[in-house]
Amino acid sequence: MELQSYRKYSQMAQGIIKPELVFKNANVFFSHTGEFRKGDVATAGGMILGVGNYEGEQEIDLEGRYLCPGFIDSHLHLESTLVTPGELIRQAAQCGTTTFIVDPHESANVSGTDGIDYILEQTEEVPANVYVMMPSCVPSTHVDDNGCTLTAGKMKAYLKHPRILGLGEVMDASAVINGSVSMHEKLNLFGERVRDGHAPFLAPGELSAYALAGISTDHECVDYEYAMEECRNGIQVLIREGSAARNLDAIVKGIVEHGTDTSGFCFCTDDKHIEEIRKSGHINYNVKRAVELGLPVEKALKMATIQAARCYGLKHLGAIAPGYQADFVVLDNLEDLNVLEVYHKGIRIQKDEKTEIKACNPQLKNTVHIHSFKESHLKLKHPMKKAHVIQMQEGQITTVDVTEEVPWKETAGEKVFAADKDYQKIAVIERHKHTGKVGVGIVKGFGIRGGAIASSVSHDSHNIIVVGDNDRDMAMAVRELICTQGGYTLVENGQIYETLPLPVMGLMSDAGYEKVNETLAKMIPKAHEMGIPRGFDPFITLSFMALPVIPEIRITPRGIYLVKEDRMIRNPFS
Amino acid sequence: MELQSYRKYSQMAQGIIKPELVFKNANVFFSHTGEFRKGDVATAGGMILGVGNYEGEQEIDLEGRYLCPGFIDSHLHLESTLVTPGELIRQAAQCGTTTFIVDPHESANVSGTDGIDYILEQTEEVPANVYVMMPSCVPSTHVDDNGCTLTAGKMKAYLKHPRILGLGEVMDASAVINGSVSMHEKLNLFGERVRDGHAPFLAPGELSAYALAGISTDHECVDYEYAMEECRNGIQVLIREGSAARNLDAIVKGIVEHGTDTSGFCFCTDDKHIEEIRKSGHINYNVKRAVELGLPVEKALKMATIQAARCYGLKHLGAIAPGYQADFVVLDNLEDLNVLEVYHKGIRIQKDEKTEIKACNPQLKNTVHIHSFKESHLKLKHPMKKAHVIQMQEGQITTVDVTEEVPWKETAGEKVFAADKDYQKIAVIERHKHTGKVGVGIVKGFGIRGGAIASSVSHDSHNIIVVGDNDRDMAMAVRELICTQGGYTLVENGQIYETLPLPVMGLMSDAGYEKVNETLAKMIPKAHEMGIPRGFDPFITLSFMALPVIPEIRITPRGIYLVKEDRMIRNPFS
Repeated sequence: MELQSYRKYSQMAQGIIKPELVFKNANVFFSHTGEFRKGDVATAGGMILGVGNYEGEQEIDLEGRYLCPGFIDSHLHLESTLVTPGELIRQAAQCGTTTFIVDPHESANVSGTDGIDYILEQTEEVPANVYVMMPSCVPSTHVDDNGCTLTAGKMKAYLKHPRILGLGEVMDASAVINGSVSMHEKLNLFGERVRDGHAPFLAPGELSAYALAGISTDHECVDYEYAMEECRNGIQVLIREGSAARNLDAIVKGIVEHGTDTSGFCFCTDDKHIEEIRKSGHINYNVKRAVELGLPVEKALKMATIQAARCYGLKHLGAIAPGYQADFVVLDNLEDLNVLEVYHKGIRIQKDEKTEIKACNPQLKNTVHIHSFKESHLKLKHPMKKAHVIQMQEGQITTVDVTEEVPWKETAGEKVFAADKDYQKIAVIERHKHTGKVGVGIVKGFGIRGGAIASSVSHDSHNIIVVGDNDRDMAMAVRELICTQGGYTLVENGQIYETLPLPVMGLMSDAGYEKVNETLAKMIPKAHEMGIPRGFDPFITLSFMALPVIPEIRITPRGIYLVKEDRMIRNPFS
Repeated sequence: MELQSYRKYSQMAQGIIKPELVFKNANVFFSHTGEFRKGDVATAGGMILGVGNYEGEQEIDLEGRYLCPGFIDSHLHLESTLVTPGELIRQAAQCGTTTFIVDPHESANVSGTDGIDYILEQTEEVPANVYVMMPSCVPSTHVDDNGCTLTAGKMKAYLKHPRILGLGEVMDASAVINGSVSMHEKLNLFGERVRDGHAPFLAPGELSAYALAGISTDHECVDYEYAMEECRNGIQVLIREGSAARNLDAIVKGIVEHGTDTSGFCFCTDDKHIEEIRKSGHINYNVKRAVELGLPVEKALKMATIQAARCYGLKHLGAIAPGYQADFVVLDNLEDLNVLEVYHKGIRIQKDEKTEIKACNPQLKNTVHIHSFKESHLKLKHPMKKAHVIQMQEGQITTVDVTEEVPWKETAGEKVFAADKDYQKIAVIERHKHTGKVGVGIVKGFGIRGGAIASSVSHDSHNIIVVGDNDRDMAMAVRELICTQGGYTLVENGQIYETLPLPVMGLMSDAGYEKVNETLAKMIPKAHEMGIPRGFDPFITLSFMALPVIPEIRITPRGIYLVKEDRMIRNPFS
């Protein structure tokens, strides 16, 4: 702070001169002490000066309502919400999230540093604090076919960027633990910063070796016992409640039951769709749900504010205290926890203000590169033996690798896999570099009948993924997404039912969230009507089926990947 | 960490190869979760690799004893313990303190950067982690006469030193709040680091303005209510329990009574004499006392370990988890909390190992510069009106400014102040630059009869301070300390009873702590016999009487200083 400014602000803090803007009669949440107390909050220049008895040049009378520091989403991917970053931020900010720790992992997998630059540019003028973690696993693993390889060398230039906080989620645990040179170059480059983890289900010794490499957070934890193991290893647990993965109930129930010290926990959404944010909220939902489960509201609020700020070294965020940024959430009461108003740097965030969508580099709208795709690429010969099947799990993105008899039929003298109500076909088509790679597998529990569902959002390489019960509809879906340069599509009996184009890197729409929501509002119920269980979101769940770091079995352009064995098989009958 | 080393340690953490040293069958304190659990702690190269079931190349069987991270003293001055830094560290380390956040404020006041270099050099090879905060107030205030002025310019060279953590206790609150240029240059120089506070009794608005300047700790807090005010302002409270100032009971009782969130607290000693460390312990005493007062042991241990480490950004300290330094305290049980063994980087600290005293720059042993001191300089004319009197407060270093009639006598036709059982004379003689300045005042409640007590340790300028009931003995005491180049001395009826020479900057002995203790064991009881109340340590309390930042009234070489009014008066009758 300039000394001239300090002198003025010091006088305001002391009440010698009137502070610019005072929030009168607030029930202030002090996150350092975890308590509510009545007071006036003095601010100037978007900064908090003090809490006490103040009269301001301008005053906002809160009439006893509850004033909390703005909430922090400690880990999320903006791209997976389908809309442009500015729109998502504005929607989530209206729910009280004023700080976003973003991993532009999806953009980087498609467009490399151009994708990271896109996220940085698009979040420059939003009414929130957006920090970026440098994606660590691009591509995610050695079995991925993505658009770009992000090395430590390419990352170096970003070290000086004021909004680059550290290294993004390190998913390739075996590269870490086994001491891969390229992985450790990245870990060392960010040696003085936060290095985010992604460590589901590591064995105890492996988890220790992973923490030993300097990784200090994880958001992949799905149960209380494992969360505690992570905390004991010095890993901060970012409790995730997103669209696909919902871990809050399991972890918070354990915390409440055991009276656990909550200092090792924060909240995140990871991936949450915009229509869900509008419906149920953002980090305010995590807080509310945790309180419903019996967590004291003060502890939930500390997780949502100062604990996340400290975890990421953001000294000016997460508290209502002198020198902190004037980011506030106004709550009606401590039972309903409804967000009434939100302020960023002392300025109120308006509800549903029209967002101007910033144009992007045109190259980022030309990223689906598939020369010669044919329906015959989807054929799956049946050698009359058991197949590895991807068994879905309701409410989870994990899958189970089951080996079973699967249905077949004879076509033109050839025995081929035949979908039925239990088993359907799943395929991934490489879309970055015209390689022609297509992987075909079998999925159980997905349930689609009489058509196909396809997406260019498929973590983390974002190739085209498609599930269907007949090759014709599947091929039509793929062709549709080549044509729209990415998107979601639903095909029913030889007809395109609806398509949501996602032309920005094949990940995001630039048509505005209203259009996105309107389209999804038609597509999602239809997908469920076509047989996809209501226990999961059709497109989001689909998008994780190609992610080779999540147990137990995945589909990639190279074939079926058995995660535990780190083994690729050409087809499910191998 | 080198990749080669990581690969080896990773295998050890996973139990693939045997860790170098395993602490078997420990009851491990996990400071991240605040819980004890049984396990083996694997270490190598002085670093913790993991906690679980391990077999080691070497093993130490703890047979169920309690293994905690080494304790952290979050704020102390090494010089005030009277012995050389290495000796003090070794003594305190035997009590379980393995990390010391040191402010070499005393050395800097006498010898400037040479004094800081002395502390850095002397702590290079000790069995503990010693970090240094750059003294911020040298001299302490504009009314001080010390040996050196430490500007931001002189500090700059130290920013790169790996053991310089931040800016030391900022005592001159008014310089901060009023926006003094030189103070803010120092605050800005350490803008990205920890800036320690020293903020007793600031009014609410002042405290906010002080926190607004970026100050984030304070160890001067004497009661619970003020501690909470500091916490709410984002200031971490370092609960002090030293030789002179003991604030732990007051603050911890409040915490226990109110069930307060303890995340905003750490422990420190500030100033603790070596014989007291040997008798009652160091930070282990703070822990033990807090538990006696009803604080759960897990919370006390977090204050003594991870909370202090986090407060100072020491990511490798304060926990038993992978990647943390192997600094351990072994406790017998959770009731008695006796320290059985201490380890630093996996190596056991031996009890009472002979410490080799490192030689120092000879210039540092020639720092008492007084040309022409005469007994007549101590004369105090009595103008037959009321005088400002320094009223002592038992158990505190604060004083009360009382204005009273004081006794007098007539000598050679002149009315002069005459000491009696209630009132004695106190004087400070400038000793750095031959300025000849002598301040004389009146003290009540010090109680010395039939002699004088003097010291060259007098915070923060470390001029010669003397209290007595007659000028002859006072002058003799001052002359003795000029002769020994600093020390403590006690004069009784015209005879030097005993002197403890402190030739290193007039602050420390290089004769070894045994000699220091032996001498103090004679001098302190004698001082009490001579009338100094048993409620305070004669020399330590004396050493604070010249410190112009502590309320309400002080004595300096320029005269009497009224702290609240920031006003110097030439003599107590002014």
